[in-house]
Amino acid sequence: MEITKDLSCVMTIFGGTGDLAHRKLIPAIYNLLHENMLPENFAVVAVGRRDLSHEEYRDSIYQSIQKFSRLKIDNDLWNVLRNKIYYSKFSFDDNLGYSKLNEFLKALDKEYHTNGNRMYYLAVAPEYFEVIVDKLNNHNMVDTREGFKRVVIEKPFGRDLKSAQYLNKKITEVFSEDNTYRIDHYLGKEMIQNIMIIRFANSIFEPIWNNKYIDNIQITAIETVGVENRGGYYEKAGALRDMVQNHMLQLLTLTAMEPPPSLKTEHIRDEKVKVLQSLEKLTPEFIKSNVVRGQYGAGSIEGKVVPAYRNEANVSPESKVETFAALKMHVQNFRWAGVPFYIRSGKRLDRKSTEITVQFKELPNILYFKENKELQPNLLTIKVNPMEGVVFQFNGKEPGSRNNILPLQMDFCQNCEFESNTPEAYERLLYDVMKGDPTLFTRWDEVEYSWKFVDSILEAWKSEENSFPNYEAGSNGPREAELLLSRDNRKWWNIESNSFCARK
Amino acid sequence: MEITKDLSCVMTIFGGTGDLAHRKLIPAIYNLLHENMLPENFAVVAVGRRDLSHEEYRDSIYQSIQKFSRLKIDNDLWNVLRNKIYYSKFSFDDNLGYSKLNEFLKALDKEYHTNGNRMYYLAVAPEYFEVIVDKLNNHNMVDTREGFKRVVIEKPFGRDLKSAQYLNKKITEVFSEDNTYRIDHYLGKEMIQNIMIIRFANSIFEPIWNNKYIDNIQITAIETVGVENRGGYYEKAGALRDMVQNHMLQLLTLTAMEPPPSLKTEHIRDEKVKVLQSLEKLTPEFIKSNVVRGQYGAGSIEGKVVPAYRNEANVSPESKVETFAALKMHVQNFRWAGVPFYIRSGKRLDRKSTEITVQFKELPNILYFKENKELQPNLLTIKVNPMEGVVFQFNGKEPGSRNNILPLQMDFCQNCEFESNTPEAYERLLYDVMKGDPTLFTRWDEVEYSWKFVDSILEAWKSEENSFPNYEAGSNGPREAELLLSRDNRKWWNIESNSFCARK
Repeated sequence: MEITKDLSCVMTIFGGTGDLAHRKLIPAIYNLLHENMLPENFAVVAVGRRDLSHEEYRDSIYQSIQKFSRLKIDNDLWNVLRNKIYYSKFSFDDNLGYSKLNEFLKALDKEYHTNGNRMYYLAVAPEYFEVIVDKLNNHNMVDTREGFKRVVIEKPFGRDLKSAQYLNKKITEVFSEDNTYRIDHYLGKEMIQNIMIIRFANSIFEPIWNNKYIDNIQITAIETVGVENRGGYYEKAGALRDMVQNHMLQLLTLTAMEPPPSLKTEHIRDEKVKVLQSLEKLTPEFIKSNVVRGQYGAGSIEGKVVPAYRNEANVSPESKVETFAALKMHVQNFRWAGVPFYIRSGKRLDRKSTEITVQFKELPNILYFKENKELQPNLLTIKVNPMEGVVFQFNGKEPGSRNNILPLQMDFCQNCEFESNTPEAYERLLYDVMKGDPTLFTRWDEVEYSWKFVDSILEAWKSEENSFPNYEAGSNGPREAELLLSRDNRKWWNIESNSFCARK
Repeated sequence: MEITKDLSCVMTIFGGTGDLAHRKLIPAIYNLLHENMLPENFAVVAVGRRDLSHEEYRDSIYQSIQKFSRLKIDNDLWNVLRNKIYYSKFSFDDNLGYSKLNEFLKALDKEYHTNGNRMYYLAVAPEYFEVIVDKLNNHNMVDTREGFKRVVIEKPFGRDLKSAQYLNKKITEVFSEDNTYRIDHYLGKEMIQNIMIIRFANSIFEPIWNNKYIDNIQITAIETVGVENRGGYYEKAGALRDMVQNHMLQLLTLTAMEPPPSLKTEHIRDEKVKVLQSLEKLTPEFIKSNVVRGQYGAGSIEGKVVPAYRNEANVSPESKVETFAALKMHVQNFRWAGVPFYIRSGKRLDRKSTEITVQFKELPNILYFKENKELQPNLLTIKVNPMEGVVFQFNGKEPGSRNNILPLQMDFCQNCEFESNTPEAYERLLYDVMKGDPTLFTRWDEVEYSWKFVDSILEAWKSEENSFPNYEAGSNGPREAELLLSRDNRKWWNIESNSFCARK
């Protein structure tokens, strides 16, 4: 089916000189070409405000591919791509720029036989989403009678429910839901695409994937880096908007969703939305004791002294923005009633890892569980990043002992065996936009319900003072995040696979 | 608890110059000493018919430990052990020999402070079991008023139900069931001891360990060697008596048993017996099409030409003894109704492996199972020998592909991580006899029910001609063994773990 689809298109990148284009988008396009997945009829126009010739832009892009592509650049292949990349300089509110761009896109369409297909990628700050979409409309650049016109919107999609609704209204006046690709690059990650397959292409997980056998689920996305050069953006976002509203809640829906009636996009999205609809509403009292926010102070990471968040570039010295969030939440349906989901995300922590750990129940008074009070629970961990794989912790006999029981690990390490074959998220996602497959993008109602949930926290936080900074860079986060679980006689699992290390 | 028990004893090995003593028993004793598990008050008397001095016997044993122990011999340790080993020459029907032995054991008891504790290990051909037990009785060597008197009986325990009952009667006239240790050395293997722990010290296996989720269970014990120098014994046994009646049925009971009410020996044995009691009775018709026997012809293994069974030493050139057996059987209870157990064991096959594979059901019309007709089932394999570990085969996304699904493996490799720490079966079992723990030995009713089951096959075979040889040495066995499963739309799994190999 895939090969019969017409993927031809001209891709316009608004923000073509920005970080995302250089680090992710153009390297992904190069990699797709390398993997023979880029349509032959294809061109790119990068739009930016800097004064560059096509050649100068191409040279700058060459450097970026060399630096950021997972693949070694092949000069023959690069020469194929190079001549398909163009640069157009104008400001996003400049009408003349859009007129010229439209003429240029028409010319490229003829030259590259792209059948009128256009992808508009908005790799820009969110305040430009509205104006770009509006101008594209005013200049008749979204006519779907001849070829597709698809828009790709980067996060953040709004900064609360109200602004997201406003933005969505503005977009849907121009692009139909079908043609709107709200990107959440986590969904393009290999192991996240694998969650549904692991759950639904195996017969033994589904019977135990519920509140009868599962004690709790932990979703973690933590990193060692700080805000880097994104202080300006981050001051308006914070961990809750930057990570929880989108990536973390997406991981939760994939982990918690019911099996859909089929693998069709809308069936899958319907099930994901049902999870969001089932989230227990958070009261201010609940939030006070079950949602933890943090901001890093100075500290050291891998022996290097690093500054406090408030001393980062473009950050207010009195900033109250959270760089860490952890919370406990419940999915109130028949499958999950009584099973807490613990979520945490933060910057400048002691390790980098995105992972989902399913902790199974113990049987405290039965056989070995009775005799070994210290017996550990069964754990299934899906490692998303940087290691990719699955680790299952179970109990077995300590070799040579009579009946000493040890936690042992079975594991499947994906990026040990398939190393550089693993494509980057943006490769898969760009390909899907060209193909017209929105499965790995978020539908409007997913965004809407996520904001509803997050808004209740943002609202409660407004009336509560915080005392930042409250964790040291390089630590494992605020003490309250540990208490969140220890109060429930649980702990955050940090599963490192022994043999992952051995095989690295 | 263990350390308070008095393990002191004098061990008498009938058959002290034989293969078992040299290859297994004495090396196991040395290894126990090395692991600091041998009681300080301990001595060994080897009884044989060869004319040897203590010193000559000790020298011969030293060679054997060097050759067969998993540990490098340490001369200081050896010197500790050396002087505790004695040799006594007499024929097993020689009354004077027993009188002298008794006096000698009494003297050693005083010298080594073993409190009258004696272990009699019958490492002899089965025809001597009765006479030895009888003579021990006649010479008042089994008096339990002062110290324990335990007898260890090697296989085969009888050659059918009737002879086993007779033998058991003879033994129980002298030794109580409590003091009778029927050894099945498979039960001493690390991963077999692990079966119960894997099943009952983890919360997620038990809920899926039944006919709702399991399609079939395969128990395999195959080897590449032929009868070696045991042709004489094997001619009277065959694969069914040598492997199925004891080892294979024991593996089956451990895999299929209900959780016992506690970990007490008798509770565990009770549950094992219940499995044997639930075995579906085999009719001659069923046996005809569901029990396969084979005998190897000439062939080649690893490039080396090897003779047919009928050309092995001490084997009749017209032998009708089976060197291969495979069968399908059912455990007729609520847990297992409808789940076939496939068992196979044979010599001179293409690989060496003892393993249990649990094949889980597929869900042919659901989601990924619907779209991928070729999807493989979930498999859990417990590797017993020579590799030790657990392999779980599940389905995941082929990295980089859209939705291609591949069978992937998670595994735990026990003898990769704990290599030479893994004790041999006989170490554990000898230690258990000294300790008085019969959990890993077979109770009489286990033996009895196993013979009942096997007798029905032996009986049916009597009236059926076989056309041996029917498989080539180095092949995967008789074609009928493949048909046994392919008829049911199944196949024998030969699970090799990828990463086992990578880590070797």
